[in-house]
Amino acid sequence: MKRSQIALAIACALSAPLFAAAPAADEPIEVIRPPQNINLGMVELGKKLYFDPRLSKSGFISCNSCHNLSMGGTDNIPTSIGDKWQQGPINAPTVLNSSLNVAQFWDGRAADLKAQAGGPIANPGEMGFTHTLAVNVLESIPGYVREFAQVFGSGKIDIEQVTSAIAEFEKTLVTPNSRFDQWLLGKADALTAQEQVGYQLFKSSGCVACHNGAAVGGNSFQKMGVVEPYKATSPAEGRSAVTGQDIDRFSFKVPTLRNVEMTYPYFHDGAANTLTEAVDIMGRLQLGRTFNAEENASIVAFLKTLTGDQPSFTLPILAPSSDSTPRPKPF
Amino acid sequence: MKRSQIALAIACALSAPLFAAAPAADEPIEVIRPPQNINLGMVELGKKLYFDPRLSKSGFISCNSCHNLSMGGTDNIPTSIGDKWQQGPINAPTVLNSSLNVAQFWDGRAADLKAQAGGPIANPGEMGFTHTLAVNVLESIPGYVREFAQVFGSGKIDIEQVTSAIAEFEKTLVTPNSRFDQWLLGKADALTAQEQVGYQLFKSSGCVACHNGAAVGGNSFQKMGVVEPYKATSPAEGRSAVTGQDIDRFSFKVPTLRNVEMTYPYFHDGAANTLTEAVDIMGRLQLGRTFNAEENASIVAFLKTLTGDQPSFTLPILAPSSDSTPRPKPF
Ligand code: HEC
Ligand code: HEC
Ligand code: HEC
Ligand code: HEC
Ligand SMILES: [Ca+2]
Ligand SMILES: [Ca+2]
Repeated sequence: MKRSQIALAIACALSAPLFAAAPAADEPIEVIRPPQNINLGMVELGKKLYFDPRLSKSGFISCNSCHNLSMGGTDNIPTSIGDKWQQGPINAPTVLNSSLNVAQFWDGRAADLKAQAGGPIANPGEMGFTHTLAVNVLESIPGYVREFAQVFGSGKIDIEQVTSAIAEFEKTLVTPNSRFDQWLLGKADALTAQEQVGYQLFKSSGCVACHNGAAVGGNSFQKMGVVEPYKATSPAEGRSAVTGQDIDRFSFKVPTLRNVEMTYPYFHDGAANTLTEAVDIMGRLQLGRTFNAEENASIVAFLKTLTGDQPSFTLPILAPSSDSTPRPKPF
Repeated sequence: MKRSQIALAIACALSAPLFAAAPAADEPIEVIRPPQNINLGMVELGKKLYFDPRLSKSGFISCNSCHNLSMGGTDNIPTSIGDKWQQGPINAPTVLNSSLNVAQFWDGRAADLKAQAGGPIANPGEMGFTHTLAVNVLESIPGYVREFAQVFGSGKIDIEQVTSAIAEFEKTLVTPNSRFDQWLLGKADALTAQEQVGYQLFKSSGCVACHNGAAVGGNSFQKMGVVEPYKATSPAEGRSAVTGQDIDRFSFKVPTLRNVEMTYPYFHDGAANTLTEAVDIMGRLQLGRTFNAEENASIVAFLKTLTGDQPSFTLPILAPSSDSTPRPKPF
């Protein structure tokens, strides 16, 4: 760089804050930030494991079957289809931004993503496998043996490595750059007038008490049915299953509202098909407030501005099984 | 360009053929060429449809469920899992290079990829839907309505457009650049000595009579069990179901051997787990020849050189359903 160019560069760098609007610090919703401290080798390995149906007994079901990254990180059906088409007990939450959750699962029974990831593999109603069998399969596949050795520097694959890699991949599944975040970052015309009205209503009527922070939820457990009871179509009792406390009955982790446009159907039993319905129920059951059609539409319009950039990556190619790989048991 | 540079460029261009080895014109296997005359808009749309489980009754099964592009375009189980976990009657062939097939399905009952693509959507044992319902779903999704209008310039979605787009995407699923093709194109050290021995055996013992051309198969129907009958684990009788001719009983479309390392288990009933087994059976049943372990291993080593570049693309993001989208019926 010539001296004059350097001077100009410094001048620009110094003056930049004058032009860019400062993030709106006093808003209850925060901008999603791109993930940090990411181990890229673990991410690439975790991505493969996330897409690999050989972690299931049948050889047919992968994490992506129920948390489809083409569809907002969920399966868009009320309760999931598991091994042998078993009907799951509860709606599958999105994996998008799940790293921001205070804990994992509707009742928070897993502390973090790593603790969570072992669950579905060994759950008879989900992937129907065991950790030992899953590790045996991976150890029989030369492509995986090499990649685990490269990433973990150890000669032996274990379930800790498997869940660490999957969790590291999941950490990358954040969705920054939604129109709402652009607005928070100072792009005043990123939201329409109706969307801004919706956001004001979302704040003034009290939704932000539970849905706040970067994930617009995910950071507390709250009673479902504060003002009026919720007639769930599932017997799940939520947080009390973990704490054993009666006061936690029907408390659930507040779901993130990021990308909520894509994560229908809504609620832990998947009983609400549309955002209109979910917003109406929330208003009445949580706040004792009945929104008129226009108010409801404004809130829904605002919620749709929370759809961010979906994770974008090349479909992973999985290393083939070897002659010694235990074969799946589909039937 | 300066005059001297232009002269050099021309000199290089002219002299190139002197250095590059000419393709081996007298070999029974031809190089796979990248696809031509591709309509990119249709490809992008077809890719989304290929990954969209909303084309199934349950909302859970997409083309990619059974022809998983992370796993060589197949499901790697003997017979497929369909709607409600129904067991399919026959092994799912790979979609990779299926555009090179003389006809589609083991018995060739579909003339081409477009004719094929309507089948699974409406097959009660596969996606369990109907064409009308599938089109209704697509028409209710604004993202699809716009994309179909953009690609087909028509206001209305129909099943013809759906199958055309899927077929166009499938045309891109060729796998050029295998080590074998590099060798055919003159890279003499692309194959090891053992692999070259395997290829010579593959030619000299008569495999190429049926497995030839760019797909190393896919271009004729042949009896399974020429010298010795094949004891299939499935009742399928193959080509005779289409022609009604007794002579075609147990004739099947010769499968492509491209990427055969990834398309286990083998044969129309998926009964052979390993290439070693499949090569042994082929030798005995089709040619009356029993390969010793070394010969078998050489042929298997050669077959593995037929693995080409797998299709590489960004996982498609699917437009969300709207409030009016008919909901899937998973149970
Ligand atoms: C058969 C369907 C199915 C499969 C397969 C599956 N999940 Fe889930 N997943 C669910 C359901 C249902 C829940 C909610 C369970 C609950 O809260 O009790 C869930 C919860 C989660 C959560 C917690 C999200 C939150 O906000 O609480 C994460 C993270 C997750 N799954 C990741 C994975 C990973 C990683 C895999 C593969 C190793 C996987 N899932 C496989 C259905 C599935
Ligand atoms: C007292 C806490 C609380 C308040 C206030 C609240 N919510 Fe919720 N919200 C929850 C909980 C808990 C759930 C999950 C309930 C369940 O699934 O059973 C939820 C679920 C939702 C869902 C469904 C998300 C999904 O993916 O299933 C939407 C949408 C929603 N809330 C929007 C709102 C709106 C809009 C308001 C204000 C009108 C609001 N919430 C007020 C706690 C609250
Ligand atoms: C439930 C599993 C399943 C689903 C879903 C499925 N297929 Fe298939 N596919 C099969 C099976 C099994 C066959 C072989 C049937 C036969 O030959 O009789 C097949 C055959 C094919 C073939 C012929 C290949 C050849 O070499 O003959 C193509 C191409 C194909 N499918 C593409 C698709 C497309 C496109 C979709 C989605 C619209 C799809 N499949 C959905 C299982 C499935
Ligand atoms: C007379 C024709 C013919 C000859 C000769 C022949 N094949 Fe085949 N090959 C077929 C047919 C037909 C099939 C499918 C049979 C079935 O699935 O029931 C097949 C299947 C295969 C398969 C399994 C592919 C898959 O994806 O399922 C392999 C591997 C194979 N052949 C290799 C060979 C080798 C190696 C030789 C020589 C030793 C050979 N073939 C000779 C016709 C032939
Ligand atoms: Ca949901
Ligand atoms: Ca096969």
